Amino acid sequence: MLLAADCVAGYGLYLDLIAPLVADKPTLRSGMMKEVERVESAIECAMAGRSCALVSSGDPGIYAMAGLVFETCARKGIRVLRPEAGDAQAAEGSALQVEVVPGVPALCAGAALLGAPLTHDFAVVSLSDLLTPWERIAERLEAAARADFVVVIYNPRSRKRDWQLGRARDILLAHRPPETPVGIVRAAMRPDQDVRIVSLAELDPAAVDMQTVLFVGSRSSGRYLEFMYTPRGYAGKYAIGA
Amino acid sequence: MLLAADCVAGYGLYLDLIAPLVADKPTLRSGMMKEVERVESAIECAMAGRSCALVSSGDPGIYAMAGLVFETCARKGIRVLRPEAGDAQAAEGSALQVEVVPGVPALCAGAALLGAPLTHDFAVVSLSDLLTPWERIAERLEAAARADFVVVIYNPRSRKRDWQLGRARDILLAHRPPETPVGIVRAAMRPDQDVRIVSLAELDPAAVDMQTVLFVGSRSSGRYLEFMYTPRGYAGKYAIGA
Repeated sequence: MLLAADCVAGYGLYLDLIAPLVADKPTLRSGMMKEVERVESAIECAMAGRSCALVSSGDPGIYAMAGLVFETCARKGIRVLRPEAGDAQAAEGSALQVEVVPGVPALCAGAALLGAPLTHDFAVVSLSDLLTPWERIAERLEAAARADFVVVIYNPRSRKRDWQLGRARDILLAHRPPETPVGIVRAAMRPDQDVRIVSLAELDPAAVDMQTVLFVGSRSSGRYLEFMYTPRGYAGKYAIGA
Repeated sequence: MLLAADCVAGYGLYLDLIAPLVADKPTLRSGMMKEVERVESAIECAMAGRSCALVSSGDPGIYAMAGLVFETCARKGIRVLRPEAGDAQAAEGSALQVEVVPGVPALCAGAALLGAPLTHDFAVVSLSDLLTPWERIAERLEAAARADFVVVIYNPRSRKRDWQLGRARDILLAHRPPETPVGIVRAAMRPDQDVRIVSLAELDPAAVDMQTVLFVGSRSSGRYLEFMYTPRGYAGKYAIGA
């Protein structure tokens, strides 16, 4: 997909990470908080007849750009077609063929580095209140904590958002024992990767940054040596290790 | 990893799907419901000094085998080491080096085929009550529905479990409008792939099988032509399409 595209659009850092694949293709490079402009440029490029690859880190459909492509097309009344529709149908009446290419999301990369925290039901919550009111975020954390989901936390903290993770920890602590394991994965699979497991009670928001994803165990998640995992329930049914 | 392994263990169908990669390596092949035996065989093989790749479909950490590896080692008192520990440390005192290789989970493959249903907070629930009591599953569905998560449903139905999806739909309908979009993806990225979008009210459990993953929209998820997406909230903050 990327190699076949005429043009590549993305956040500057991500384009740098894939520089060998981009090679000398024209790029549409933009900064943080410029998501709307980035997606509009990519759509304009593609509507002008050049194929455009819009890159995200991880999976493009999880807290990333894929949703904004559809949202923008819907609002602008741009007809979108499935990739299998064929070029003839796309050419007729200026429609846009959209193919979302799935990837390995940070929640899978981080889980793999920790062990296996997501082998049972889990909920994924972003703590960014830039686009979602905090009350809604707190309500979701509360619901997930109460119903004993493993909770994956994206966007836990940034320079400007420094209190949300402490509040999230307190909401979770009201429903989970203080020794609940919390996996903290920073920059998964990148050179500055860092993996730690702490208890929920000792989770220090100051030690977490924007590139971090957290995994808060359910009531059955455990730690074994340097790993964290959530049992699926086989032990209750079969005699493991007996 | 797979190419470097001395031996490959897995569910028969999955070994068949990767036959060209397995080539003439010895395999530990087992059937459904034989997960405990499969994992024990793989661990025994590795403890005997041969490297063993244990394969799952999608991501090995999401409702798959990775958790059972750690659970089994913890119960049997087998010391596990991180992959970076080095062979010398592993040889000393018969420990097992474990590396979990993340993959593209069915929730990402399915979401990509539907459009972008997971661009905002979501909860993932398995309807299989073989290892989890139904009351716990129902409580999680209720919590996720109430807190307006997009809900991803794994293991919706099998030949023996035929009533759970209808109950799940009724729980969700109590908190979501009947026109809420539901994406139904069967056998994502395989030859017999099938992708449909229906409304929550018209969701027919009889049309769903074991190989299917469902995506129930949040209150803000929408349909646009043949796609389903969940807005991140940019439209409220920026003037998209203005």
